[in-house]
Amino acid sequence: MTYEAIVEQIRQKSSFLCVGLDTDLSKIPSFLHDFDDPIFEFNRQIVDHTAAYAIAYKPNLAFYEAYGSKGWESLEKTVKYIRANYPDIFLIADAKRGDIGNTAQMYAKAFFELLDFDAITLSPYMGADTVKPFLKYPGKWVIILALTSNESAVEFQTMPDKHTGITLYEKVISHAQQWGSPQNTMFVTGATQASLLKNIRNIIPQHFLLIPGVGAQGGNLEEIASYTLTPQCGIIVNSSREIIYAGNDINFAQAAGTKAQNMQIKMKELLAKTSI
Amino acid sequence: MTYEAIVEQIRQKSSFLCVGLDTDLSKIPSFLHDFDDPIFEFNRQIVDHTAAYAIAYKPNLAFYEAYGSKGWESLEKTVKYIRANYPDIFLIADAKRGDIGNTAQMYAKAFFELLDFDAITLSPYMGADTVKPFLKYPGKWVIILALTSNESAVEFQTMPDKHTGITLYEKVISHAQQWGSPQNTMFVTGATQASLLKNIRNIIPQHFLLIPGVGAQGGNLEEIASYTLTPQCGIIVNSSREIIYAGNDINFAQAAGTKAQNMQIKMKELLAKTSI
Repeated sequence: MTYEAIVEQIRQKSSFLCVGLDTDLSKIPSFLHDFDDPIFEFNRQIVDHTAAYAIAYKPNLAFYEAYGSKGWESLEKTVKYIRANYPDIFLIADAKRGDIGNTAQMYAKAFFELLDFDAITLSPYMGADTVKPFLKYPGKWVIILALTSNESAVEFQTMPDKHTGITLYEKVISHAQQWGSPQNTMFVTGATQASLLKNIRNIIPQHFLLIPGVGAQGGNLEEIASYTLTPQCGIIVNSSREIIYAGNDINFAQAAGTKAQNMQIKMKELLAKTSI
Repeated sequence: MTYEAIVEQIRQKSSFLCVGLDTDLSKIPSFLHDFDDPIFEFNRQIVDHTAAYAIAYKPNLAFYEAYGSKGWESLEKTVKYIRANYPDIFLIADAKRGDIGNTAQMYAKAFFELLDFDAITLSPYMGADTVKPFLKYPGKWVIILALTSNESAVEFQTMPDKHTGITLYEKVISHAQQWGSPQNTMFVTGATQASLLKNIRNIIPQHFLLIPGVGAQGGNLEEIASYTLTPQCGIIVNSSREIIYAGNDINFAQAAGTKAQNMQIKMKELLAKTSI
């Protein structure tokens, strides 16, 4: 998917919402357990009721791997369902993979060929070797962990370099600008460190940022937008649990749809300040 | 598996060899494609012919995920086969996962409950949050990426801290010593940077090191051992392609067995210098 196609979808839906499909069998409504594939059925209904308000979905791989080969089948069915019914959606594999050479190529095959995701999240610890094999796929994206929203993010990510003073996450962003371009590279930048988002936007004025941590993790949408919105939007904000677990009965998907719509309404107001 | 049980297996087999099961359908002997599950059949034969010389196996997850749910089935069967037939083997999921909170818990469930691996490799970029959920499992191990053997490892891992001068990989090791102990934590330390292995062994005299990069990636076994062997051995050296693709005909597994035995003979000589 091109940069322009993502922007066009943002324009059409007046939304930059990504819904995280962190589907946990122990949290979904109990009646779904009567279905052959409860995880897929949950995802299908969530997608059907939120797709008008969301431009992206982001299954987190851990939640599928926890059920082994059956979990992978649920993931495969979810991806196929979204591709068939909502072809404009930007599909992110939240895999946080980080391996090299022929191993990275195998992950690229898994997520870009077999599963036809548009993007994959990657961990940069091992350097360029972990990212470059994914950039060989035209139209596909890498989303590199830069500054994450968890408590222990500051253990290593904000460590300053002895020689340059720039921090590790800044160095990751700086190096990654050499590997790819704003047309195939995004960065994960956590919403719980809003003031640092301003700094990141200064370094990369064009790149899309994938911002988790709004909602359950406490980030504030208006504040985040004030630091990161670009004339072309430039951000995708993810919400997972707050949307998908908004309800827990027969109407769970409608409840999720309402939550997603509420976020979309806020996003529409914020987008009015851009040139979209 | 306890530290002592690993050492006991090293003593019995006079080996500290790990065989990497990076099983690629395009590289296995063509006659295996007639089997229902070629990947499992390849793994089964490799394990049967190398288990006398190896103390650990390390399937690399990318090679299974590249075949989707079918690949996961091959992995599940491989793990079950090794558990049933070679109960002393130390089983490592080379997953290089790195996620937080409830996501990390789901990965732990996938690899420690569903698949019953003894250990998982983890990427430390997001800090303690990515590791601690795995340490709640008694008898299970985390193997944290510290200094890897790939070319771009130096992009970030050897960056020195402005305040302390210690490098990122040293900081990872130092922090990880607070999270766990030598009884549940190992580190991935690449063999292609042999001189730095000496430094790592000085920082952590007791921890097991998982050392890839011997063989195809060029590390030298004697040199590595001289820097890292402890009185209790303290190292597990991995070889993947050089062993599993030693042959490409009906006798491929015997060829792998011979390669593994050759490494075991060298390892036996090196272990004579320890108190094992």
